[in-house]
Amino acid sequence: MREVAVIGVGLTKFGELWDKSFRHLIAEAGSKAILDSGISGKDIDAMYIGSMSSGRFVGQEHVGALVADCSGFSHLHIPATRVEGACASGGLAIREGYLSIASGMNDIVVVGGIEKMNDVAGSSATETLATAADQEWEAFFGATFPGIYAMIATRHMHEYGTTKEQLAQVAVKNHANGALNPYAQYQNEITIEQVLKASMVAYPLGLLDCSPVTDGSASVVLCAAERAKEFTSKPVKIIGSGQASDTLALHSRRDICTLDATVYAAKMAYKQAKITVKDIDLAEVHDCFTIAEICAIEDLGFVKKGEGGKAIDNKITTRDGEIPINTSGGLKAKGHPVGATGVAQIVEIVLQLRGDAEKRQLKNAEIGLAHNVGGSGATCTIHILEAM
Amino acid sequence: MREVAVIGVGLTKFGELWDKSFRHLIAEAGSKAILDSGISGKDIDAMYIGSMSSGRFVGQEHVGALVADCSGFSHLHIPATRVEGACASGGLAIREGYLSIASGMNDIVVVGGIEKMNDVAGSSATETLATAADQEWEAFFGATFPGIYAMIATRHMHEYGTTKEQLAQVAVKNHANGALNPYAQYQNEITIEQVLKASMVAYPLGLLDCSPVTDGSASVVLCAAERAKEFTSKPVKIIGSGQASDTLALHSRRDICTLDATVYAAKMAYKQAKITVKDIDLAEVHDCFTIAEICAIEDLGFVKKGEGGKAIDNKITTRDGEIPINTSGGLKAKGHPVGATGVAQIVEIVLQLRGDAEKRQLKNAEIGLAHNVGGSGATCTIHILEAM
Repeated sequence: MREVAVIGVGLTKFGELWDKSFRHLIAEAGSKAILDSGISGKDIDAMYIGSMSSGRFVGQEHVGALVADCSGFSHLHIPATRVEGACASGGLAIREGYLSIASGMNDIVVVGGIEKMNDVAGSSATETLATAADQEWEAFFGATFPGIYAMIATRHMHEYGTTKEQLAQVAVKNHANGALNPYAQYQNEITIEQVLKASMVAYPLGLLDCSPVTDGSASVVLCAAERAKEFTSKPVKIIGSGQASDTLALHSRRDICTLDATVYAAKMAYKQAKITVKDIDLAEVHDCFTIAEICAIEDLGFVKKGEGGKAIDNKITTRDGEIPINTSGGLKAKGHPVGATGVAQIVEIVLQLRGDAEKRQLKNAEIGLAHNVGGSGATCTIHILEAM
Repeated sequence: MREVAVIGVGLTKFGELWDKSFRHLIAEAGSKAILDSGISGKDIDAMYIGSMSSGRFVGQEHVGALVADCSGFSHLHIPATRVEGACASGGLAIREGYLSIASGMNDIVVVGGIEKMNDVAGSSATETLATAADQEWEAFFGATFPGIYAMIATRHMHEYGTTKEQLAQVAVKNHANGALNPYAQYQNEITIEQVLKASMVAYPLGLLDCSPVTDGSASVVLCAAERAKEFTSKPVKIIGSGQASDTLALHSRRDICTLDATVYAAKMAYKQAKITVKDIDLAEVHDCFTIAEICAIEDLGFVKKGEGGKAIDNKITTRDGEIPINTSGGLKAKGHPVGATGVAQIVEIVLQLRGDAEKRQLKNAEIGLAHNVGGSGATCTIHILEAM
């Protein structure tokens, strides 16, 4: 397989963006990534876009063609493809772009992720998000994602003694990181007391245990590694790409506290990258709820199953800890425009590995991991990146 | 690039399938393709599924994971990805599956296409189909696809003297083919008089100029060509894959009678296959409306621009003509479950090239082409296949 590098990244501000349209956001993130990469439009061989539910959120399917059009390159007739895997749509778009270069079909690919979730026609954001769950066995009966992750959390507390305070500390840590990220939806620090006293959404998850509803877009430019230095002095190589599936409905899993899709995708990515989990210097993980970050650091192998809560207590995931997690602020503080999240994770890893992460820059970050989950874990993509 | 072959195909009956659920249809087509290919579940490296608007039609996004789950392989954690490009979703799924094998990441990939359009909650099928058009410039103002293609048809009539009778003959020919296809939604022949007298939908397109609203699923198994003969004695190689984009809205095109995405995608596919259009023995083209088939045979290069109507008069596209088009019955008679169509086209080409097309089998079919369009031509995929 041909090697692939990230040569440019772009982000819009994440938040409630009532004054920017869906296509405005796509064009903004894409333009920034293209500008950052040093390519021009005629260099682009293909585009991939991750979007979970543009058809329901903004009444627009056929988003691949829209991207090719609103980016101003319609006269170039560039192939453009949308991929969808719920909240893992961005990670899947990265993977398809990566494979298309690895295949030899393309040299330079722009990958984007987009969701506009606040200005919603028809049904509510929560109802549309529930289409990522099993429609016949979960959504139809009224199960929404806070409820589904609450079941994971209560089981984790029962099995391993994880506490509400440990969950709260995930949110506190991610807000501390988000406070240093000018693109984050929430740039304010919060306290454990605030998290514990926040209004209950689904026990044990309160409002501050949940990622928000967000508008935003992210984009990266991928390039055949052998050509990367034509365009940039700081390319970042994708050294591993993993993807796996699990049952759509939570009740069918062997263990609801373990996301097997994460376990399998990680195994695949570590093997391809020829590394072990100990070689990872930082990770962006899918903290759609605080419990999800605890499961993620266990399932990725940073800590043993059941010890995620304790690890939070021991501060190993803070910016100066053993394995910094979600330096961007994560889904909790940076925001979670679902189709954009997987791409935005790659943006943060690239910024850290290039030394461009400004106030939240880590020292000695050489290898980073991005972990993107769809639904309650039915889809997982993992990408491992290393500075070239 | 590694070469890729189709080693198995499967189809459900197309039609109004009130007694079969979305997941039932996926599982049926997938099982048939797997059985036809001779592989078993543990051989599958990845799955791709094309679906245009499952989120709106049946309230279910995250269809990749659903496919991996409802096919009975959830314990294998097989990576599964949905791709979407409106009515070209199936063709895009074929292309992504193809590229993933070409890259070396996968050896064996199951590709499916699915749409369930009749049993629709909330909005109408026409309203959901309009999400494939430009939401801000077309759909919002009430333009639906019959209206958009009617504009193409009237312009084609004005520029080139194409007649309503020539349009009607496309439908008559495709129904004659569909009458021989046991999987087709409509297996009845029709007359020119019936087409001309059918109730008007959008001038000049009457009811029998339009493809129907259809439920159905199609599936193929792709395999690295070097391994194909481990599984089947009749593999069919994909010798060319092309994809291109155009403006989403019709009004932005340089010429509304030419689908430039078809022109560019065809050029790409012919070049890769190292053939010219004269080498093609049969084609499945995207006849969502009768005018679309006339544009397609022109844009693919079978006849000159403007001569599509005359070509129909001269019967060159019938089963015993110079270049048989839509032997399956096409979208018009076989039916058009939008996400499944691009995959079903590949199924027909494979059956013809293997000699398995029964009553509609062509003589001496060696190279076939599948042409799948999204929206009014903003996305196009083209695949060229040859018996190994």
